[in-house]
Amino acid sequence: MPLIRLYDLAADDPDRRFSPACWKTRMALAHKGLDVETIPVRFTDKQTIAPSGQKLVPVIETGGLWLSDSWKIAEYLEENFPDRPSVFGGRAAKAASRFINCWVDIELTPKLFPLIVKDIFDHLAPQDKSYFRESRESRIGMSLEDYSADRDNRISQFRASLQPLRVLLRTQPFLGGDCPLYADYAVFGPFQWARTISTYHILADDDPIRGWRDRMLDLFDGLARRVPAYRT
Amino acid sequence: MPLIRLYDLAADDPDRRFSPACWKTRMALAHKGLDVETIPVRFTDKQTIAPSGQKLVPVIETGGLWLSDSWKIAEYLEENFPDRPSVFGGRAAKAASRFINCWVDIELTPKLFPLIVKDIFDHLAPQDKSYFRESRESRIGMSLEDYSADRDNRISQFRASLQPLRVLLRTQPFLGGDCPLYADYAVFGPFQWARTISTYHILADDDPIRGWRDRMLDLFDGLARRVPAYRT
Repeated sequence: MPLIRLYDLAADDPDRRFSPACWKTRMALAHKGLDVETIPVRFTDKQTIAPSGQKLVPVIETGGLWLSDSWKIAEYLEENFPDRPSVFGGRAAKAASRFINCWVDIELTPKLFPLIVKDIFDHLAPQDKSYFRESRESRIGMSLEDYSADRDNRISQFRASLQPLRVLLRTQPFLGGDCPLYADYAVFGPFQWARTISTYHILADDDPIRGWRDRMLDLFDGLARRVPAYRT
Repeated sequence: MPLIRLYDLAADDPDRRFSPACWKTRMALAHKGLDVETIPVRFTDKQTIAPSGQKLVPVIETGGLWLSDSWKIAEYLEENFPDRPSVFGGRAAKAASRFINCWVDIELTPKLFPLIVKDIFDHLAPQDKSYFRESRESRIGMSLEDYSADRDNRISQFRASLQPLRVLLRTQPFLGGDCPLYADYAVFGPFQWARTISTYHILADDDPIRGWRDRMLDLFDGLARRVPAYRT
């Protein structure tokens, strides 16, 4: 079993790993029970992951093979470690999980971004700050400060977008059913993004989604709970 | 194999069947290849489905057993006809499909409702009209006419909410993957709701979701295409 290296986005504190997409991959790797060495990379460390042929994390390297894109990495793990627990739960579940992954990337992550973007900036390594500010401000068309200033108003939209998850969790403990699967890791990514980088309470105190998030934090001997993060 | 009777919401024209939840069930029954007799019921026909112990369609009756709720009916079909093609595609796929079903009921259907509510009203049997108007106007807090007056503005919100589906369909032909499954029928329900009752074009002419909707309309010898509906 070759070692797998995960190139994992890090804050100024190299142990603070906050990328939502990297967390999808980290949980999928743990689900497969694979040995992983995580390597902290910064936004401006593009050279480190250059062998992957692109500029975004997560990237994994194993036995000289470089792979990027959290979905493709999950597919790779499923195909290459068929004797380990299935991360998708079968072909049809993989197809439906892909919808959930799209929902996360299109509905959830962008609505969470303005709530935590200033906290992300504040945690970055000095050399990442101007890159992050310029690239994000150019995309959003205003300063990070202005964009995040009305987060107390924006949060209701984020919480409302979680309603399908909230209703689902009345009937089953995980998106995967009785046990967590990739659909759970896909949704958990943004929650862990917020938790590792921001003190902002993205979930109301009485939100039943907290129970699911706690179950996710408990998985794999508390993998996601043990890391540098905030109690939110 | 006992005959299954589906109590199916009908417009003034008893062949015009428009309930999104009933369409989920109708497609699931067809997926299982089961003989079905559909019985038109109107909103005010609560007596007809009273043996189900509640007042909402879809309701099925088979061999004296009465069942309601489209999700529970799908579960019943899956458990009781295991030799027929699986409608969920396995346990994990069922769990993920349930999320998709929640997304449909919480995100999609309510955003579609104001776009077609006046068209629904206009198609109803005379005895249903005052019930429908009063119950819906009490819920929305304004007249059906006022509620649907700005549908040209509201439609962008509905179309935006479809983005996860749109992105998904770039990589696979159905939510179920290569073949349609219950996740597809759940999403198709609201599309067929609109198509059977309204001339309003809920999808832009160049929306790639049209290709998926066409594939859904082609299923089961054009089951959903053959019924009274509008070309939208």
